[in-house]
Parts: sequence; structure tokens; C-alpha cells
Amino acid sequence: MLIIPLNLGSKIPLYEQIYEYIKREIKTGKLPVATKLPSSRNLAQSLQISRSTVELAYQQLISEGYIESVPKSGYYVQGIADLIRITERKQSHSKEKVEKVERLIYDFSPFAVDLSEFPFSTWRKLSNQCMNDMNQSLFLLGENQGDLSLREAIGAYLHSSRGVKVDASQIIVGAGADYLLVLLSQILGNEQIIAMENPVYKRAYRIFQGVPYPIRPITVNSDGISIEELMETDATIVYVTPSHQYPLGAVMPIKRRLELLRWAAKGNDRYIIEDDHDSEFRYKGKPIPSLQGIDENDRVIYLGTFSRAIAPAIRMGYMVLPQRLYQIYKEKYSFYASTVSRIDQAIVCEFLNGGYFERHVNKMRKRYKMKHDLLLRELKLYEDRISITGENAGLHIVVSFHTSLTEQEIINKARKQQIELYPLSKHYITDYQPDEPAFLLGFANLSEKLIVAGVKLLMKELFKSTIDKVSRLL
Amino acid sequence: MLIIPLNLGSKIPLYEQIYEYIKREIKTGKLPVATKLPSSRNLAQSLQISRSTVELAYQQLISEGYIESVPKSGYYVQGIADLIRITERKQSHSKEKVEKVERLIYDFSPFAVDLSEFPFSTWRKLSNQCMNDMNQSLFLLGENQGDLSLREAIGAYLHSSRGVKVDASQIIVGAGADYLLVLLSQILGNEQIIAMENPVYKRAYRIFQGVPYPIRPITVNSDGISIEELMETDATIVYVTPSHQYPLGAVMPIKRRLELLRWAAKGNDRYIIEDDHDSEFRYKGKPIPSLQGIDENDRVIYLGTFSRAIAPAIRMGYMVLPQRLYQIYKEKYSFYASTVSRIDQAIVCEFLNGGYFERHVNKMRKRYKMKHDLLLRELKLYEDRISITGENAGLHIVVSFHTSLTEQEIINKARKQQIELYPLSKHYITDYQPDEPAFLLGFANLSEKLIVAGVKLLMKELFKSTIDKVSRLL
Repeated sequence: MLIIPLNLGSKIPLYEQIYEYIKREIKTGKLPVATKLPSSRNLAQSLQISRSTVELAYQQLISEGYIESVPKSGYYVQGIADLIRITERKQSHSKEKVEKVERLIYDFSPFAVDLSEFPFSTWRKLSNQCMNDMNQSLFLLGENQGDLSLREAIGAYLHSSRGVKVDASQIIVGAGADYLLVLLSQILGNEQIIAMENPVYKRAYRIFQGVPYPIRPITVNSDGISIEELMETDATIVYVTPSHQYPLGAVMPIKRRLELLRWAAKGNDRYIIEDDHDSEFRYKGKPIPSLQGIDENDRVIYLGTFSRAIAPAIRMGYMVLPQRLYQIYKEKYSFYASTVSRIDQAIVCEFLNGGYFERHVNKMRKRYKMKHDLLLRELKLYEDRISITGENAGLHIVVSFHTSLTEQEIINKARKQQIELYPLSKHYITDYQPDEPAFLLGFANLSEKLIVAGVKLLMKELFKSTIDKVSRLL
Repeated sequence: MLIIPLNLGSKIPLYEQIYEYIKREIKTGKLPVATKLPSSRNLAQSLQISRSTVELAYQQLISEGYIESVPKSGYYVQGIADLIRITERKQSHSKEKVEKVERLIYDFSPFAVDLSEFPFSTWRKLSNQCMNDMNQSLFLLGENQGDLSLREAIGAYLHSSRGVKVDASQIIVGAGADYLLVLLSQILGNEQIIAMENPVYKRAYRIFQGVPYPIRPITVNSDGISIEELMETDATIVYVTPSHQYPLGAVMPIKRRLELLRWAAKGNDRYIIEDDHDSEFRYKGKPIPSLQGIDENDRVIYLGTFSRAIAPAIRMGYMVLPQRLYQIYKEKYSFYASTVSRIDQAIVCEFLNGGYFERHVNKMRKRYKMKHDLLLRELKLYEDRISITGENAGLHIVVSFHTSLTEQEIINKARKQQIELYPLSKHYITDYQPDEPAFLLGFANLSEKLIVAGVKLLMKELFKSTIDKVSRLL
């Protein structure tokens, strides 16, 4: 007879207490294989509980395979004790180390965005509206490519603002650029060799490195990627940022664009990945039309995201595929469920169609231009000591310092003044290093006051000895 | 001198009209390379517009590389006309064909969910609360693995309800199971050979096929995957659904679980992927504890999603990695940005911590149990003509028909009665077919009335000749 200690006052149901007790007895071998258990009636009587409670416990044990029920005979322990290891698993899981990086006052991060003007109340309003309007259907799985209405809204925007030649059917909406690049690498297959700008957008580099693709680094000059170097490689794909080279800031001129398209047209399966990462933020004239828009051979994969134009937390990007790649996607990968919440899709769709997006981008462009111009003005005061590149677009400016200090020395000196700097060298994928230490100065999330004070502090710290020396000489 | 036709009443800004005109002239070769353009002052005078308007147009043309500015000389056309192809790109993009599949009245889809009890107002409330509480920070990019607070909430849930041994640091939150399986395959690398249940959850199969991994199909019997067959393969990983085999419904008994864990422990780099796809919905006793929870060698990758327990549109799943795989993730893939919107993360976190999730799942379990029992009861009336498997859990029951009709004949007959059936055969990854035509009867989104009527109609359609014959014989 089983004597099971039951705790009637416990929150754990009685059947579960019985189940746990018998399971433990079997696991530890105290109830050996083939032992016959008492009938549910007998056990119920001896424990003074209802028979259905015992039956529930037995059913659970049967479901999990600890005991079996032999019709017209009874319940028997199954042979598992010999399989159990007695050793407890070592608690190897160290608690997550929370790497608390102290945030400095003057953080010139090129990845920051300014959310102070984000239309929170509009977003909330649209969110509520969507949930009210569509209710249930919005909680069902939508189209894998992204909902058609959203793709149409994105298509219209890309056509009018970026000159992208696009039909909604070619657009794939996904959870951010990283995800879309992973998906794209699956569509392109494992056999590709990819040429990349050097310096480059490092996340894209790491994604292609992870496929793994052999990577051919190509020099970037003031007109963008070098076509001569590209033609000397065996690359089948090239990844470029023609509207605003990341991180150096070059705009690829029309001549080089046409040469690049010609390179792609020459091979049977050559493709250009055009990452239009921050095309919304150009501070002079109108946005540079996309490379995709002037391609006549369907060789450009156009990639964009709402991370910068709306907010990074909105995990949403889009990719416009050439027809041949779209066919591969359709055949082999279109079964992947969408990676973007439908509610978010509905909100962004309304945000685009209702004109909120355009207004928001215009407002932010003005705001960023103001900060950009201010940073530039402050930097130009030191024009004899620094070189400035990559102005007029994006959310950072590249500055190189005429100094004998090393990059690390500059970083350390800056930190003493609560200034965080982001070196350009990190963006290179070869051993090549810039001649002088150079940094990306992001301005998006710094106030005007901090921009002015930050530049002044930095320059004083870096050049004070020179300044002192000069004043002594005079 | 350039004569540019300007439309003063147009919505297109004047500078853009000038820019477009000159660009077109250059592209078509009417302004040949090295042509000197009029100075901005002269062009402005001749067009009777402001000089800054002309300068803006010239700046844009310079940015895009159509013209260049030679200091102290003027503006010159760049050589690009020879690169331009005159041919217009063929409009090869066919408009998306909207495949409107007519939804039948009695749709026994195994993928459906019942959203009629979804706590929409709670969701809206939490959504608003999150947006109010956290405001700006919620729109910034969160942790790539998923926000710690959410991972802790998921960890607590998995520990208490599924017996998963878990630390929040091992959890990766991603945009659905498909995405997580793609990520997992990157972490595991290209060199794996994967054993899969046959029949299997087809999406997982297609994802691994796409990596590509060589796939070894393993027979499933009433205790789940065959360990004997598994041991005969060269597989390094195995994908299983032990709590509720998809699609057949077997619960893997403890003996087989231990054998499976022993298989994994024997090889140096063997892993088990435990897909706990619908573990919340078990209608007898308590949920089956996870395989991961009894593993003592850190060989089980545990995978789950909120698609069924909350709603398919919430694109959120989670994966618990063994330490060694977590290290690989950390080193090589942790730079991937999170694929889940932070607002959704915050809502789900509150949904879990506030007890809403538990209440919702309990309510849905009752509701689904009611439908499940009803479907089972109706089917049992025809027990001599059909076999039923996979009851007591999940959102479908597997039914095979004792009939000489082929699978397709049954589907066609059913459609005549507005009944949609989903064949089991589609879930096999080998040529092997079930002896008898078998189908997955999903019940989640059918009302009780439709379940009763649907079964009656189906049986009448399939067996009426027999019924007629029998009655004639009597």
C-alpha cells in the first residue's frame, strides 16, 4: 500500500501531490519496474479522498509514461529508473552580467535618434483606432509578405520620394534591416561572393560574414565605391549605400551609378544591394533619387527601414526585390510567417496614408538640419586642426584630427571630459586604417547646448598643449 | 543660353523644374559632355527668378554628379550620356494576382484560433498604459535578445508551467517560431544533419531544408519518434514535439524521453530541438512537463510561441538555449537587432506579470476543451467507419476513414458540402502515405453548431452509399 503524505491546506491540488509523489518514487527506484499500484478505488479509500482525484493522478502518470494501465489487471510501474541519472545538473548558468555602461554627458553616438518630437499622441490615437476598427481580424495572421495595404502605402512613398520603380507585389516587409538581409541571403543562396564598401556599415558586413559569404572589400573614395576595384574581383553581388555612403557620407554621382549598373548587367546573376538607410535626412536640395529607379535591368535590391524616420523600436523595414529574386522568394521562402505584428503594420499604414509620416519626416529634417548646421559651424572654428567630411546628410559628420595623438589617446582624453567618441576605424573590414584618427560625430540626440559645449570641451582637451605652446611663442 | 520652360503655377518647386529639365537634357545628350552652363546669375536673370533658386538646382545636379563646378570658371556637364540606355525598362512586373480562396462554411483548419474571447479591452488598456508610462524610451531600440523584464516574465512562466530550467539570460525573444528556427540554424552552423519526425510540422521541415541541412525522416509511432531509427542515422540534431506530436498527437512517455536525452548525451555536439508549439492546450490533467526540464546535460533547445496562446498576429516566440549554444549566439549573432517591437514586448510583459495571460489561457483551455469534446463525441458516433487519434490536446483531432475513397475524392465530396479538409499526407516528408486517407480536423474557430453540423454533413456525404446499401440489405 502506498502511503502518500497529502497536504490538504496546500495550494497544490491533491491529484498533483499524488502524481508528484509517485513520480518521485519511480524516478528514485523506490517503486521498481513492474510494481503493481493500488487500484484507484483502494488508494482513494486509504487516503480518504475521492476516486476521481486518484484517477486524474494516474491518468497524468500514464500520459507521461511513468505507469501503464493493463486492462482488467491494473496499473504497473514502467521501467525508467535505470535511465535516470541521479546527478543533479550543475548550475552552470551564471546570472546575466548586467553590463552597465555609464552613459557620458556628451555622447556623439551616430546611432542615436531624437525622439523629443515624436508624435506620441498621434501614435496612440492611431493604435487605438486600429484596434477598434479591425478588432478580431487584426489579431489573426496576416500576409507573410506584409499586409497588402501597408505594402501599397510603402510603394507609393518609395515611388514619390525615392523614385523607386515598384509594385506592391515586390515588397517584403520584415522585422528590421538585419532580418531582411538574412532573408535576402537565403534568397540569393550560399554560392555568392559579395563586394562591400570599405569602410562599411558593420552590421551588414557581419550578417554576410555569418552566411558565410566570401567578402571582397572595395575602397570608397569621394564618389563612393571604386568600380575599377570592383571589376577586378570575382564578386557576384555588391552592397552599396549610394545616397549617403555609410559612414563616410559620399553621394554616388550619376556616372558611377551608371557604371555600377553596367557592371551588374554584364554578369548573368549579378545583383546590387542598395541600402538606403537614412535617405530621408538630406539637408540641401531634394533627396538623391535611388539607384533602383534608374536601373533598367532589374538588378537592384532596394532596402529601407523606418528605424530612423519613425523610431528604432518600430521593428520594421522593407525590401524591394527584382522579379527573378521575387520568384525565388515566392517559391522557396514565402511560407515564412510575417515577422511584423499586424497591429504595428496597421498603425504604420495609417501613419503613411494619413500624411503623418511626411509631416513627421519634414519636421525631423528641419530639426536635424539645425543640429547638423550648428555642429558644422562649431567644428569649422577649428578648420586648421581638423578635416570635415560627410556633411549635408544623415545623422553624423566625420571628423579627422591633425594630431600626433592616437585614436585611443583621443578617446581617453575625451572620456575625461564626459565625451563619448565613435572611431571611424571600427568601420573598416581590412587592416587599412585612416591616416589620421577620425571619428563619427553623431548629433541626433544632443541638445544644441550640448553640441556647442561638447565641441568646445573636446577641442580644448585635444589641442590645449598646442594652443598653450602657440600662445607662449607669441 | 538655356531656355527652360517654367510653370509658375505648378506644385513642383521652380528649382526642381530647372533641375529636372537640365538632367533630362544631359541624359538625352542634348547637353553634351563639357558644355559650360550659364552662371547662376545669368540664368536667374534670363528666367527672371531669384539666383538662389538656380543655385539650389545646380547644387542638386552637382550632388548627383550631373554637372561639376570648376572654381573661378563655372559649371560643366559631366560625361554620362554614353552610359545611359535609351530603352525603357520593360514593364515586366505583373500586378499581384489576388488569389481569393473562397472560405468554406465548415473550415476544419488545424491552424485556426478562436479569438472571440480575446481580451481586446485589456490589450488596449495595457497598450495605452505602456505608451503612457514609458513614453520615449519605449521607442528606442531595446536589448537585442528581448528586453530583460520580458525575458524574466517568460522565464518565470516556463519554469512554473512547463518545468523548464531557465535563466532569463538564456532566452531569446524573436518574431515568431520561423524566425527563431532560422536564427537557430545559424547558431548551429551549416554542418548539421537533422533528424525529423515523420510526419512533421512542415514549416520547420522547410526551414531546415532551406539552410540546407540533410534531413533524416524518422518514423513516429504512438510513443513519438522512434529512437531505434534515430540511432541508426548520422543525425547530429533531432527536432521533436514531445508534449504533443505534431500532427499525430502522441505524448512522448518518460522512457522515450530519457532514451532521447541519452542519445543526445552520447555525441559531443548532439542537440534536441523541443518545439512546444501548443503545450498550453491539454484537456486532461496538467500539462506534460517539458523535455528540457529533465535534461541534465544541457542538450535541449526549448522553443515556444505566443501565436496560439495569445494571438497569431502577435509575432512573438521565445527560445531557451543551452549554455554552449548561447555562447555562440553571444559571440556571433547577438548583434542582430531585436525583431520584436518594444511596445509589443512591454504589453506582453504586462500581460504575463499581471496574471492576464494565465486567466486567458485557462479560459481558452476550457473553451477549446468544450469544442474538442464535442467534436470527439460527434466523431465517435461513427467509430466503426473511422479511427480517431491525437485527442486530449491541441487544436485538432486526427481522423482516418475506413473507405475505398481516395484522399482527393474525400476532399472533393467534402467541398460539395462546404467542408474544407486538411489531409494528413501533406505532413509526411517521405513517399510513405497513411494506409487510409486521414485528415486533421481543427476545431478552434468553429462554433459548436458548425462542429455538429459539419461532422454530420461530412459523414453523410462520405458514407451515404454504404448507409443506403446497408439499409437496403436490411
